[in-house]
Parts: sequence; structure tokens; C-alpha cells
Amino acid sequence: MPETQSLNIAIIGHRFMGRAHSNGWLQAPRFFELNARPVLKVACGRDEDATQAFAENWGWQETESDWQKVVARDDIDIIDIATPTHLHHDMALAAAANGKHIFCEKPFCLGTTQAESMLEAADKAGIVHYLNHNYRRCPAIRLAKKLIDEGKLGRLYHWRGTYQQDWLADPQTPMRWQLRHEFAGGGPHIDLGSHSVDLARYLMGEIATVSCLKANFVNQRPDPEGSGTGEVNVDDASLMNVEFDSGAVGSFECTRYASGRKNHNQFEINGSEGSIIFDLEKMNELQFFSRSGPSTEQGFRTILATDPEHDYVGNWWPPGHIIGYEHAFVHAAADFINAVSGDGTISPDFTDGLRCMQVLDAASRSAENGRREPVSRD
Amino acid sequence: MPETQSLNIAIIGHRFMGRAHSNGWLQAPRFFELNARPVLKVACGRDEDATQAFAENWGWQETESDWQKVVARDDIDIIDIATPTHLHHDMALAAAANGKHIFCEKPFCLGTTQAESMLEAADKAGIVHYLNHNYRRCPAIRLAKKLIDEGKLGRLYHWRGTYQQDWLADPQTPMRWQLRHEFAGGGPHIDLGSHSVDLARYLMGEIATVSCLKANFVNQRPDPEGSGTGEVNVDDASLMNVEFDSGAVGSFECTRYASGRKNHNQFEINGSEGSIIFDLEKMNELQFFSRSGPSTEQGFRTILATDPEHDYVGNWWPPGHIIGYEHAFVHAAADFINAVSGDGTISPDFTDGLRCMQVLDAASRSAENGRREPVSRD
Amino acid sequence: MPETQSLNIAIIGHRFMGRAHSNGWLQAPRFFELNARPVLKVACGRDEDATQAFAENWGWQETESDWQKVVARDDIDIIDIATPTHLHHDMALAAAANGKHIFCEKPFCLGTTQAESMLEAADKAGIVHYLNHNYRRCPAIRLAKKLIDEGKLGRLYHWRGTYQQDWLADPQTPMRWQLRHEFAGGGPHIDLGSHSVDLARYLMGEIATVSCLKANFVNQRPDPEGSGTGEVNVDDASLMNVEFDSGAVGSFECTRYASGRKNHNQFEINGSEGSIIFDLEKMNELQFFSRSGPSTEQGFRTILATDPEHDYVGNWWPPGHIIGYEHAFVHAAADFINAVSGDGTISPDFTDGLRCMQVLDAASRSAENGRREPVSRD
Amino acid sequence: MPETQSLNIAIIGHRFMGRAHSNGWLQAPRFFELNARPVLKVACGRDEDATQAFAENWGWQETESDWQKVVARDDIDIIDIATPTHLHHDMALAAAANGKHIFCEKPFCLGTTQAESMLEAADKAGIVHYLNHNYRRCPAIRLAKKLIDEGKLGRLYHWRGTYQQDWLADPQTPMRWQLRHEFAGGGPHIDLGSHSVDLARYLMGEIATVSCLKANFVNQRPDPEGSGTGEVNVDDASLMNVEFDSGAVGSFECTRYASGRKNHNQFEINGSEGSIIFDLEKMNELQFFSRSGPSTEQGFRTILATDPEHDYVGNWWPPGHIIGYEHAFVHAAADFINAVSGDGTISPDFTDGLRCMQVLDAASRSAENGRREPVSRD
Repeated sequence: MPETQSLNIAIIGHRFMGRAHSNGWLQAPRFFELNARPVLKVACGRDEDATQAFAENWGWQETESDWQKVVARDDIDIIDIATPTHLHHDMALAAAANGKHIFCEKPFCLGTTQAESMLEAADKAGIVHYLNHNYRRCPAIRLAKKLIDEGKLGRLYHWRGTYQQDWLADPQTPMRWQLRHEFAGGGPHIDLGSHSVDLARYLMGEIATVSCLKANFVNQRPDPEGSGTGEVNVDDASLMNVEFDSGAVGSFECTRYASGRKNHNQFEINGSEGSIIFDLEKMNELQFFSRSGPSTEQGFRTILATDPEHDYVGNWWPPGHIIGYEHAFVHAAADFINAVSGDGTISPDFTDGLRCMQVLDAASRSAENGRREPVSRD
Repeated sequence: MPETQSLNIAIIGHRFMGRAHSNGWLQAPRFFELNARPVLKVACGRDEDATQAFAENWGWQETESDWQKVVARDDIDIIDIATPTHLHHDMALAAAANGKHIFCEKPFCLGTTQAESMLEAADKAGIVHYLNHNYRRCPAIRLAKKLIDEGKLGRLYHWRGTYQQDWLADPQTPMRWQLRHEFAGGGPHIDLGSHSVDLARYLMGEIATVSCLKANFVNQRPDPEGSGTGEVNVDDASLMNVEFDSGAVGSFECTRYASGRKNHNQFEINGSEGSIIFDLEKMNELQFFSRSGPSTEQGFRTILATDPEHDYVGNWWPPGHIIGYEHAFVHAAADFINAVSGDGTISPDFTDGLRCMQVLDAASRSAENGRREPVSRD
Repeated sequence: MPETQSLNIAIIGHRFMGRAHSNGWLQAPRFFELNARPVLKVACGRDEDATQAFAENWGWQETESDWQKVVARDDIDIIDIATPTHLHHDMALAAAANGKHIFCEKPFCLGTTQAESMLEAADKAGIVHYLNHNYRRCPAIRLAKKLIDEGKLGRLYHWRGTYQQDWLADPQTPMRWQLRHEFAGGGPHIDLGSHSVDLARYLMGEIATVSCLKANFVNQRPDPEGSGTGEVNVDDASLMNVEFDSGAVGSFECTRYASGRKNHNQFEINGSEGSIIFDLEKMNELQFFSRSGPSTEQGFRTILATDPEHDYVGNWWPPGHIIGYEHAFVHAAADFINAVSGDGTISPDFTDGLRCMQVLDAASRSAENGRREPVSRD
Repeated sequence: MPETQSLNIAIIGHRFMGRAHSNGWLQAPRFFELNARPVLKVACGRDEDATQAFAENWGWQETESDWQKVVARDDIDIIDIATPTHLHHDMALAAAANGKHIFCEKPFCLGTTQAESMLEAADKAGIVHYLNHNYRRCPAIRLAKKLIDEGKLGRLYHWRGTYQQDWLADPQTPMRWQLRHEFAGGGPHIDLGSHSVDLARYLMGEIATVSCLKANFVNQRPDPEGSGTGEVNVDDASLMNVEFDSGAVGSFECTRYASGRKNHNQFEINGSEGSIIFDLEKMNELQFFSRSGPSTEQGFRTILATDPEHDYVGNWWPPGHIIGYEHAFVHAAADFINAVSGDGTISPDFTDGLRCMQVLDAASRSAENGRREPVSRD
């Protein structure tokens, strides 16, 4: 057996995304054929005790509290950015400057300006850069892409994306950092909207114009630890209508106020030959309507995307044995390792991150001035 | 048994809506307690043979080819307007001038100006006027209204309405009169959108501002009887985002290009205490999520609105025995007869027709100028 | 226009089925092309006031309290038997003896012996006889039949029928005549089971052997008008496993104790090439799985059987506009009128009624003796 | 931090179940609080190369080809039996004789006689014994159990279990070892039926009598590597009707011939106060109908069992982020480790395995003699 290349990873961030990424790095080589071996080298976080516990649990060999030291270490190949959004820009620039490949959690950053400099830095450094819009790697969404590419939907007319959660539906839900613009860069418009826009671009192509309406329902929320209240300064909901370059039109809605919708990232695409519907809460399924065959036999079918022929699925379990949320992270980790040890390309990357930010920023301008805005893409 | 009052009806129009209305007048007294007896007196249409056949089939006692004669007849109490949209205005004005009660099919008319004069004429004449947005009389939608009125949804945040059909998804589907502005007054924006806006106003309250995007996908379609093509001059799709007076926000999408969606008039409402979802293709069902009770037991429930306690249902069949599309027309006919023979009020009426037109017209202005438009309501 | 033949109908029974049948006779000529004109001549019932009110509501020209007089009248062509089950036998024999065509409500009768004499009488009289298992005339079930006949399901392996209601789930629900064997002939085994067995025979072919388990959950129920209780002497649930002549196997479950199931007449058929699922509560839909096409695109599709090409549907409304429970009665009335004025054949008929009783009786023997029983069919 | 106890595991078997179990042992300590540390010590299999590759992939420290050596090793605490069914008995007896705790894959064994000796051996040795009917550890099924225990379903009337797959629907699917009685101990009757019976016993209680019908559809199948055919000598489908000790009744169907059903382990339970439905293909969901609250608001609700309050879920991801098939194995591994290092009890255990076999064996007798059979439980 030939010596397999090792790729040393340093992760920055140890909370929700730290766990999901760590699991991805660990599971990828167990279930997928990798051209290199991911090594969980350093876990980095400012809270030393928490970082230590995190590292022990997931098998990170070392810990570090200063991310700037980590990105400069010679023995690190990959920087995994799993921190809150406002930190992505500086970390990515430093990582790129040190020639590290970057696996970056979404949302990409705080806006188009940051996105441009992050892409420029990555391009200049010649590194492999990946932006973790993980849902592109759900087998059912891969199938959606394949159906579109094969023309099974014909000419595309409509995109209809709604990303709904409900953790703020109760006005008494306390404040958190996600409700402050300076940390999160926005509300569901950026947090959920970036996922939806990424999927729309992946499946429908580029967006040309956008009009947007943002809503604020609850401006003061209880302090989680005190008796006062804190001010929400991000949007509570975002509604967009867009025109695609192709002539198709689309709508987007993102909210955290939709009682009963837990993580309802849903989209519907209508074309001249068929339609598809996806819902993340039923992520193993794709609904597909085809106008082929006798009209009396047509209907939306629910494809359980768990056959060996579906992308990624053959590496997991037999048909009908579903996969879960974290599996898309495993797929991303596997593909990223193979990109770094292979031809260096993977998508979505920082270019996609920039394009997505351009859409969201144009939408924010529209929300302010009440006008349909072109999406600049230069 | 006391003498029951008779109400003589004249219907203008003998196609799709002529059938649905006739069936309504016939079935209403068989299934509902009416305070007066509807008499199918005159059927009016320009095609004399077709009108004759129509009258024989449905039991209209006489036929007439000139609607202006009909609205002037002394022995007619009710004018049922079941013609294409562009004729509603003149017919309604003449009927009102003659003191006839009006049962008017939707869309109301060609725009706000017509709507204003129709409402003015009806008010002046003191007649009973009804606009047939029949879906308000689906038992499941009545239940939706009741849940909202009882506060079961709490504060309302979101309306999400999509009305999709697919009969134009194929670019080779031939021309028809519905695709010409001069007859139809618009495309799905008015045909389907008027239904959605009526439901939104019914359940959510008035709309304050609107931004709209219209799309045109196929501009030339085959002539149904010749070898040439005809030009489509109405919208193919309409997307709106709105702000309600209440602070809630909403989105609307209407299209005839959604492959697989046959008559998919769907809406979702999210509030602080719960959510509801309705889909006309499953019109006996209402989905309801409630945040009451243990969180581990919450979920969207599918209420089969076929219990005797659901509005209208006790007059039909036992639980689990569903009703169909035409039943809402029967409910409308029954309620209209009782309004005419009772206190004279029924909704939606011409005021609702005007309000709806004001929203749709503001949206059309927005679609042209790219700006969020206020909805004028004076 | 040629003189159209008239067919005079006398109906016996004026409750639930009286209403559903009357509606069928009235609606059939309005929506379907009939070769003869049904005339609602006589309504017959022992309660004279109720019968009078019934006749007025539905337009029956005369009333009569003695069914034996009615079946002997010279001016009657068709006897519509819409009474409780225990009366069917005597009425059918008398009607046949008088040469009347018979439209008979289900369940057919109290058992195989009665069924044999009813079939013999009908055959001997040469009349048109129809047994109203109306669900055969749901468009979605017609589609199921067509798919099977065209081989789209391949070799049939499995039938899985459950007919569930819940009106007895509460032990405090009062007694009614349906819970007494002398009037109803049995519990859900015959009431619901006859529908299921009819559908199974229609779609799968004849049944060869059966084993059955019956259950009794609540033996005493409150008297509806007094303070005592009454004894239930019919089954509360029936479970059958069967072998079809074809080698396929099947299961049946009928119960009135399934909380939440209102009229859940569901079946699933699995074949070598595909599967179908039907549920009466969603009676406009048929689920269909086909193994044709790429495996990655296969899935259960929900066919909305509301296209003009679906049986019966072209006579109602446009696609996506659903029909309801009573429509199958209208279809049955139309087909029966055309059979009487045409070639005299319609199914299901009394032969089907006998075959169904033979299965249910064999099952009852099995429930008693605990053994698999052959179904006699001589 | 105190020294944590280590538990050394030896696994026998390295195919489908070998992978699923290994993943369970690896993931359990990462996501759950364990009282001891599972150590993947030895992987055992007859195919040395395959076993070596398996061990490397999953991190088993050593390999061994002779299971009898493994069960006798002093340094092993736990024997994980992940082999075909016919081997379970001898391995369990040897493991017990050596005082090893046993984690045993299902089906338990080839019949009641083996089951009795396995239970006896385990009891005598005083070991912790677990039978891996993993579905008991789906959060949605835990919720089902909780609802029942809390009385939310009232008195239970009905169990309706179907476990359907479709990998044999095509008669040309080749032979495999699962179709030979000597290796598998039976067809879906034991393979799928053991899962269903285990769930029924878990949720409904013990089974008193059973009648069973087995079917054979295709007796000869192509040799997977040659040009001949092989003979199938197990059942192709099994249908059971049962009476529970409680007076409830139930049905079971297991088949591999249900086109479109991939791993459709579904059950429905009806009680006097409510009903529940579970489907493994949507394993994060539980449908629940409750008769509490206004009748107009009742309906089957779909509970997404992904809230922190649902069993096991708080250790995974936020609400709406679903888990997959293998997660139930992780839950089993965690609970087993805690049982071994704790009070020694876990269910289902070998007693449950015996009870399950007694039901399935009684059913097999019934299938042969055509009679309802009592289930012996002495």
C-alpha cells in the first residue's frame, strides 16, 4: 500500500459548527475513498477550557487560543473557519497569506466588500477555497441538479424558495448574538438567505435584479441573563423577488417567525417539462413532476434519494435507510480533501460567496430605497 | 306551511361559470335551509343555440340573447353575472340601475376605476351585491378564519400565497381569450391574484404597500384554429411582496407555468402562537400548527374539515365524506338567497372587489416603475 | 330532437342513502349524456311525514308508505333500494318478480343464502340489477383498474386494504341500529368489509381462501334516549388474510375504533412492475409507483385524477377542481340509466354481491373456528 | 478528572452490520456522556484480507479469523455479534460461557429452541445481554412509547404493522444467502417480522394468539455468478393477525415484493383517545392524532421529533436538523456501554428475543396447519 498523503487541519471555533465540521473530518475517511488522510491537528478557541474539552472529545491533537498563531504554523495545511460570521474575513485573509487551504463556514462574511477581498486573497495565494453551503451535497439536491442539467425540467420559469425557522416566533425568546448586526452581519436575510441564494444560483443560474422587503416584528427581547432587554438590530424576515439572467423569475422568503417550521429550507422549481420540490426537513426526498408519459399518469412523485445510484449514497446504507443533517458535512469534507489532494477545484467557493453577497447586498439596498435593484457582478 | 318567497334569477353567461352557478342555484335549496326559493327564470347568452341547450340542461325557464333587456325585466330579482371580466362593469351598472340584486363572478372588473363606479352604483341602488370569491366558503377556510379570530394563531407575522396552474407551461398551448388584456383585464395577476388577495384580506386584513414583478415567458402562441400565431398581451406570472396594515408581511405568486400544479391555490399564515396551511387541491383539509401543549407533541396537523361542526358540512355528508369544487358555489348561492331575503349583507361584496382592485392596480404600477407602491384606499 | 325515453324510479328509504341516491338521479342528466330521462316518481317510507318532506325536498312526485304496493305499480321501471340491509332481500325479490330493474344499496343482504336467492330472482326476471359499491366509480379507482389492466403493475403480489372509521372509538358513543345483527347483518365486517372485498375483487380477481379474526371491544353502550345500556351483538373489528386465485395474497382490516380515521377506505396493491395506493379521504388522488424509467427517478407519485382524460371527470370541472363523495353516486346513476336503456349490463351486479357475501361468510366461519376457510363459489 | 473505565470490544462480522456497529461504537462517546470508554479491540472475520481492511477503516486495533479464540480472550469485555443469523446461537453460548457481555444483532436466532438456550446461558453467566432491535431507539418511537405510557392514546384497540421492501419484486433479482433457510432461518417473516413483533411487544404488550399466512411468489432465481438458477426455500411474504393479552388485535405484513417500498417499516396504533403512525423511511417523524381539544381542530399531526426534549436528540443537532439510520445504532451503543458500566439492564434483551421467537414460531405453525395458534410463553 502506497504511503498516503496527510493533510493537517486546524479548526477555529468549537461550538455548533465546530462539532459538525469535526464530525465531517472524522467520518469522511471511514465512509469515502480519500486521496489524502485528514489529520485533526489543532483546535483553536478563545475559551481555553471549552476548547480543551472540545479537542478531547473529537480527537484534535493540540489546542491553541490565538488563531493568528495557528494560521501561521508551518505544519498546517488546511484552516477550517467555524466561527461567527464577523470573524471570517480577517481569518481568511491571514490563512490565504500563509498559503493555507480554506474550508469556510457560511455566511461568507459581512458584505460584498469583504467578499471581494477574501476572493482576491484566495486567488492570489492559489489556495483551494471552499464555502460551506453544505446543502449542495445532499443527494436529493444533487439529483435536482442532474434532472435540470439533463433537461428533464425543460426551460426553467420559476424559483420559489422559503427558508423558515420558528425560534423567534415567541416574543419572549431571549436575545443572542445572532440578533446583533455587528456579529452576524444581518438576520435571516444573510443567515438563511445565503443558503437559499446559493441553491438558487446552483440550480437556476445568476440573478440579475432583485427587490426586497425586510420586516422587523420584535425590537426588544429579554436579556438572557438579566432582567432588562436587548435591542435587536437585524431583520426578522426578508422577502425577495428576483429576475434571473435566463429570464426565469424567483421569490425568496427567510424568517425565524414561522411557528412550526423548524428548519424548513424549501424550494420549488417549475419548468416547461417538469417541476421539483425540496424540503430540508425531509432531506432524503425530492419531489419531481414530469410531463413525460400519459397525462393521466402524471403527478408529483416523491423520490427517496437513498439508492446506490444517487450521489454519495452508495457509501452509506442500503436503499430506504436515510441519512441525516451532518452527512452533508461529511460529503463536503471528503470532497474538499480530494480537491486539495487533487485538481484543486471545488464548489461552492469564494467566487460563489462573492456572487451570493452581491445578491444579498443589492437586496438590502432595495429594502432601503424601495426600488428594484440590479445585481452588480463585475 | 307559510308561503315561501320566490326570487327570480336571470343568469348572463352559459359556459364554465354558467354551469357552476346554475348548479349552485339548484343544489342550494336541496341541502340548505333557505328563507326564499330561488327560481331559475332566464338564461341569457348571445349564442342562441348554446343558450337554449344550456337552459334546457339546467332548467332555466326562458332564454334571452340581449342582456340589456334582461336586466330591465320587472319579473327579475337577481342578476347573476357569469360572463368574461370585461363585461362585468356595464352589466352591473345596468342591473343596479334597475334595482336588481347582483351575484357577480370574479375577477370583479378591469380596474379600480370600474370598481369604484360599480360600488357606487350598487350602494346608490341599495341592492344586495356579492362578488363570488367562492373560496371564502370552503369549510376549511372558514375554520382558518375562526382559528385566527379566536387568537389561536396569536399575532400574525406572515402570509405566503401561491396560486399556480400549469396550462401554459407548454409553449405550444394555443391562444385563448384569457391571454388578451382587452377581454381578461390581465393574466394570472388578476385572474388568480384576485382570489389570493381576497383571501389575504379576509384572513389578514388590509394591505398597505406592495411591490410587484411580472413576467412574460411566451409572447406568441399558436392560433387555435389556424396556422399562424397570436400575441399574448397579459402577464404570464406575477410576484408580489406586501406589507399589511397590521405590520405583517406577505408574498403572493400567481402563474400558469407551474408544471404539475393544476389549481394550486395555497396559502400559509404564520403567527406567534401557530400556523395554518391551505391548498385548494386538498380543499377539505386545513393544516394547523399550534404552540399550545407540550413542545414534544407539537406538529402540523391535517384537519379533515368534514365534521358536522365545521361550517356548511353538517348539511352534506357524514365525517370523512369529502365535498368538491362546486360545493362552495352552493354555499354562496344559499348565503346570497338568505341575504337577499334577510338583512341584505353578505361578503365579499363590491367593497371587497374595489379593495382587491386597488391592491392589484398598485401592484401593476409597481411592476412598471420598479418601486414599492402604497395602496390607496380612499 | 327525438323523443327521449323516460324511466320512472321509485325509491324506498329516505335517510342518508335516500339523499345520496336522489342527488344522483337529479345530477346525472345535468352532467352526463343519458340515453333515457330518469323521472323521480315515487318516494316510499314508513314515516309518512318524513317521507313527504323528503319527497318535496328532492322533487319526488308522489309518496307511498307501503313498499309492496310500490314495487307492484305498473308505472315504475326502476326500484331503488336505499333501506337498511335486512330489508334488501324481500324488496329485491318482489321487485324482480314484478320485472323492475333494481338499483340496490350495499351491503347486499344478510348472507350467502339471501344473496343466492336475490341473484336467482334477478336472473330469472331478466332485469338489470346493480349493487351500489359506488367507489368503483371514483375516477382514481378507474385509473387504478386501467393501470392494472394495461400491465403497468406487472404481476400482482399484494393487496392491503384497511377501512377504518372512528365513531365507536369512544366507549360512551350510544347504541344505534347498526350495532344490532338483526338489522345490519354484522358490524364493520359486512358494512365496510363488503366495500373492501368488492374493490379487491374488482382489481385483483377472485378470493380462494380466507382466515379471519373478529374483535369485540365494547359490548354495552348507552341507550341513546334512556338511562340504561344496550347490547352490541355485531363485531367491532374484522381482520382477514386471503389468498387470491392468482396466487397473490391480501389482508383486510375493518374497524370503527380507529381514532382519527373518519372514512379511511384505503388500499395498496404491489406488483412486480409497480404499486398503487388509494385513500377515500383523498378520493381525487391515486398514488402510483412505477419501476419503469431510471431507478434514481422512481418514487410514489400522487396523481390528481381530475384531468379530462380521467373517467367521468371531463363532465365535471377543469383540472385541479376536485369532486366529492356524492359524485360517485351520480356516476352510478348515469351508468345505470344507460345500462337500462342500453345493453342491460352494469357492474357490480348481484353476481358480485353473491361473490362478496361468499367471501365474508367464509371469513365469519373462520373467525368462529380459527381455521383458514376456502371460499365456495358454486 | 477521574480515570474512566475502558471496555474492550470484539466484533464478529465485518459487512453491513459490522460497519453499522463500528460506527456506533465510534460515535457514541463523541455525542453522548458515557460512564466507560468503548475500545475497539478486535475485529474478527473468516476472510482475513477483508477483515484487515475493515479493521483499518474503523480503527479496530487487532484482527482475528477464529471467533472461538476471540470469545475466550481475557482482555475482551464485550462480544459484538454482527454475523448472519445462523451463527448467533453458538457464538452467544460461547461468549456467555466466557463471561462476556453480548451485543447481538437481530434476528436473534433460528427459533425458539435456540433462543431458550441463549437466554439460559446469558442468565446463568450473569452478563449484560442486548438484542439489537435498534428501532426502539429512534426518538420518534421513544415518543410513541411515552404517549402510550402517559395514556394519551387511551385504551389500545389496534396494531397495524407493515414492513415492506422491494428488492425481490423483480423475479430476475439473483439469489443470495438471505433466501436460504439454513443461513437466514426464514424470509421476511423472521428478518423483518422480528423487528415488527419487537416493536409491537414494546408498545402494545404481549401477544396471545396468532394466525399466519405465508406466500411464495418466485421459487427459482438466477445464480448471481453462473448461468443456472438457485432455489429459494424461505417465505417471500408473511401475513399475521394476532390477539394481544390486553384484548387489542393486530396485523402484521412483511414482504420484499412491495415495489416502491424501500425500507417501509410502518405501524399504526389506534386507541380510544388517539392514534399514532410511524414510518421508518421518515424516521424523524411521528404522526399523532388526539381526541383532546375541540373536535373541529383535531387531525393527524406530524411531529418532527428533533427537539432537544425528544429522547437522544439534544445530543445531536438543533431542531429541524434530522438524524439518519445509523443514529439508532449510536444510541444503542451508548446505552449498552452505560448498562455494562452501570446497573446491567438494557432492553430489548435475550428475554425479548425469546418472546419474539415464540410469536414467530407459533405463526409458522399456523401457516402450516391453517389454524390460529396460541403463543406459548413458559
